[in-house]
Amino acid sequence: MIPTITAFERSPDGGKGLARDTRVRWALEEVGQSYDTRLVSFAAMKEPAHMALHPFGQIPTFEEGGVAIFETGAIILHIAQTRDGLLPKEADARARAVAWMFAALNTVEPPILDLTIARIVEGDRPWTAERLPLVLDRIRARLGLLSFRLRDAEWLDGAFSAGDLLMVSVLLRLRMSGLLDEYENLAAYVARGEQRPAYRRAFEAQLAVNAPAA
Amino acid sequence: MIPTITAFERSPDGGKGLARDTRVRWALEEVGQSYDTRLVSFAAMKEPAHMALHPFGQIPTFEEGGVAIFETGAIILHIAQTRDGLLPKEADARARAVAWMFAALNTVEPPILDLTIARIVEGDRPWTAERLPLVLDRIRARLGLLSFRLRDAEWLDGAFSAGDLLMVSVLLRLRMSGLLDEYENLAAYVARGEQRPAYRRAFEAQLAVNAPAA
Repeated sequence: MIPTITAFERSPDGGKGLARDTRVRWALEEVGQSYDTRLVSFAAMKEPAHMALHPFGQIPTFEEGGVAIFETGAIILHIAQTRDGLLPKEADARARAVAWMFAALNTVEPPILDLTIARIVEGDRPWTAERLPLVLDRIRARLGLLSFRLRDAEWLDGAFSAGDLLMVSVLLRLRMSGLLDEYENLAAYVARGEQRPAYRRAFEAQLAVNAPAA
Repeated sequence: MIPTITAFERSPDGGKGLARDTRVRWALEEVGQSYDTRLVSFAAMKEPAHMALHPFGQIPTFEEGGVAIFETGAIILHIAQTRDGLLPKEADARARAVAWMFAALNTVEPPILDLTIARIVEGDRPWTAERLPLVLDRIRARLGLLSFRLRDAEWLDGAFSAGDLLMVSVLLRLRMSGLLDEYENLAAYVARGEQRPAYRRAFEAQLAVNAPAA
């Protein structure tokens, strides 16, 4: 049984790997699970067939046998719970790795998404230039604490886990902002994530969809 | 073994139940697990002892035997996975309930938190009055789809689950805004959540800390 995921027919980022299907592809590559991809257009995402799979009309989704789920975090947790390689076996360490998954998505990503809203959605509003420093400082407040916790460790808590996969994915959104470079250990942490062969394969797979070679 | 959670010594909401320890208390009440509460001041939250438990210096945390975790979502998932009552037993339904947990925290809550930022953190800024309608419309975009999916069902997917617990908790943040009343089925859904005896006990427990009877 090969799972099927959905991805943008054309990603808004043009293939920079920031669309959330890249996170799911990465997880599947880490556990050595091949998969099929169904591409959906922006129009098709809002049609009943896709809305039945994803109530908010987004990507990615994950289908395998009787399982049909949405939400990147839930999909990656499901992959990690049904295959080896993304969560420690020992119960306490496993619970901590799951905590880092939620921390990436609930504590670190929201202020980073606010930067996207400020720059893109509200980019032409009169308040944006004056408001941007506040948005950046809210991101720095989180990055400073994350940097302090990580110190010079390779990963957040022992071996690479789904928590690192999501944290690196979330931090990658900051590449263009230069913010990441203010925290040397976080920049190195993200680079370690990007250097993983599974990440490279996931990145190339989404790039092949969005920016096919001439 | 009785787990210990942390909560604000004084909640910023003065006992309205919006601090995240209420969500964890509710989960523990649903599964019939008694618990101890350790109250922490804002100053203590930033000290090394608490930061070792919670890298971002927040509440709640959860400790039980060798398990010590942070992040509300991770704590509730841990409670749900180690006790009966918050997740379906059948694997496919269980994966869908977990998807709703992530949907509550990652898809529905972020635009709602932006309203808190706009009204409170940036409440005195010159752009706030003009910007607020945009923030509200981003919330409506999510509520409209959630309302459409819920229709006249009692809960999001079959029996009450940890997904409902988190979705109701997230929507409760909107009580004061009046936004919830624009969606009759969502208002009724939230009211059903609040009427659960386990929620009532959780609410009273946090109220006892924050607004003790004279």
